[in-house]
Amino acid sequence: MLFFTQCFGAVLDLIHLRFQHYKAKRVFSAAGQLVCVVNPTHSLKYAPTRCAAVQASAEQGILPPCHHHEAVHDPQLVPCTCPLFSCPWEGHLEVVVSHLRQTHRISILQGAEIVFLATDMHLPAPTDWIIMHSCLGHQFLLVLRKQEKYEGHPQFFATMMLIGTPTQANNFTYRLELNRNQRRLKWEATPRSILECVDSVISDGDCLVLNTSLAQLFSDNGSLAIGIAITTSKVHSSEAEI
Amino acid sequence: MLFFTQCFGAVLDLIHLRFQHYKAKRVFSAAGQLVCVVNPTHSLKYAPTRCAAVQASAEQGILPPCHHHEAVHDPQLVPCTCPLFSCPWEGHLEVVVSHLRQTHRISILQGAEIVFLATDMHLPAPTDWIIMHSCLGHQFLLVLRKQEKYEGHPQFFATMMLIGTPTQANNFTYRLELNRNQRRLKWEATPRSILECVDSVISDGDCLVLNTSLAQLFSDNGSLAIGIAITTSKVHSSEAEI
Repeated sequence: MLFFTQCFGAVLDLIHLRFQHYKAKRVFSAAGQLVCVVNPTHSLKYAPTRCAAVQASAEQGILPPCHHHEAVHDPQLVPCTCPLFSCPWEGHLEVVVSHLRQTHRISILQGAEIVFLATDMHLPAPTDWIIMHSCLGHQFLLVLRKQEKYEGHPQFFATMMLIGTPTQANNFTYRLELNRNQRRLKWEATPRSILECVDSVISDGDCLVLNTSLAQLFSDNGSLAIGIAITTSKVHSSEAEI
Repeated sequence: MLFFTQCFGAVLDLIHLRFQHYKAKRVFSAAGQLVCVVNPTHSLKYAPTRCAAVQASAEQGILPPCHHHEAVHDPQLVPCTCPLFSCPWEGHLEVVVSHLRQTHRISILQGAEIVFLATDMHLPAPTDWIIMHSCLGHQFLLVLRKQEKYEGHPQFFATMMLIGTPTQANNFTYRLELNRNQRRLKWEATPRSILECVDSVISDGDCLVLNTSLAQLFSDNGSLAIGIAITTSKVHSSEAEI
């Protein structure tokens, strides 16, 4: 009898392991589109006014890096752009992607159109959902943030940043789309450069903004699916890409 | 000398009158689209919790009229659906449109696609911008409302209601589109029936919602242009309409 009980326990363990395997499979394909399951990360460095000075300078055409360092000695070096952690790393723009992948374990996805499936939308603010998206020869950082801009009233903010310069960013248009229950919400804009700091984009509200009630309307079982598409914004560039 | 001064004054008056005439011309055509200039109206009956009971009943499939009357004796009669005023009028659904036009002076526009140009977005909440839109054989009420759902943080809410029953409303899809400065925001949904009460739709947040910062990004000189399009949501209906 004990033997059978143990056997049954082992079978249950196997089923559980298999289930965990499916849960851990973060990228799958649905209806021809790449779906990426993105788990939330509690931001460890959230400071709403951190980039006020950066934004003021950006408006004047100067783009100092968004960092916690004393000073960046080499103007060609940029600090770590990970929105989650205060990281002392700095390096050339070309190696930011490998730093984000290797040190901060941010996933990277290929494809012109992907679905970003953010789980556990109910978690308290501040929370971030982040992936990198490789498309049209460039890498983009997609950030979905739950934040209480007004105390007691969390909102969701979604934006896409190019891991490149502001001049390069001007060549692209990104689209975020929510579609559920006969409702559709689309946001289209030029991505900002990662040098402009994601915190300032969110504090300006220049991104897709969702109240909790709207986020719930678009959520399914606590997860929010955001369709992402990136195109080149200039006609000659888009022709070249096609 | 006095004669010349008076003549000059008369010419100035004429120029001023002509300017006023242009300002008063509320509907004009731009790039093939009908543009309707909609001035704000300070809501006289704003009460955020007025329709909580109505919404609860609507979810159960019952749709009591949204009113301030003691009782509606004839179930075929509906109360005045004007979101601006507490009005004792009640009548059949077929005559709501003429009541809104004649008593509350709400303009009505024809056309499949129109531009709703709301002026004076800076005015304090609560403020409403309202027009009726006649399209595909039905009349719709477009309401843009500035409201402080959270004290000190005004937001803009835009929705479209069918002046008809919920069953009729299910046959349509409305689209509201903002487009300015390389940014585009689109909201698509099934219109609600006017019997469901605009206040409850807005308090649920089941509509296009804009923070003040986003509204400013889309505004031009204090006015917000919203592109409106209505289509039939069922294939056979849309073929019949075309």
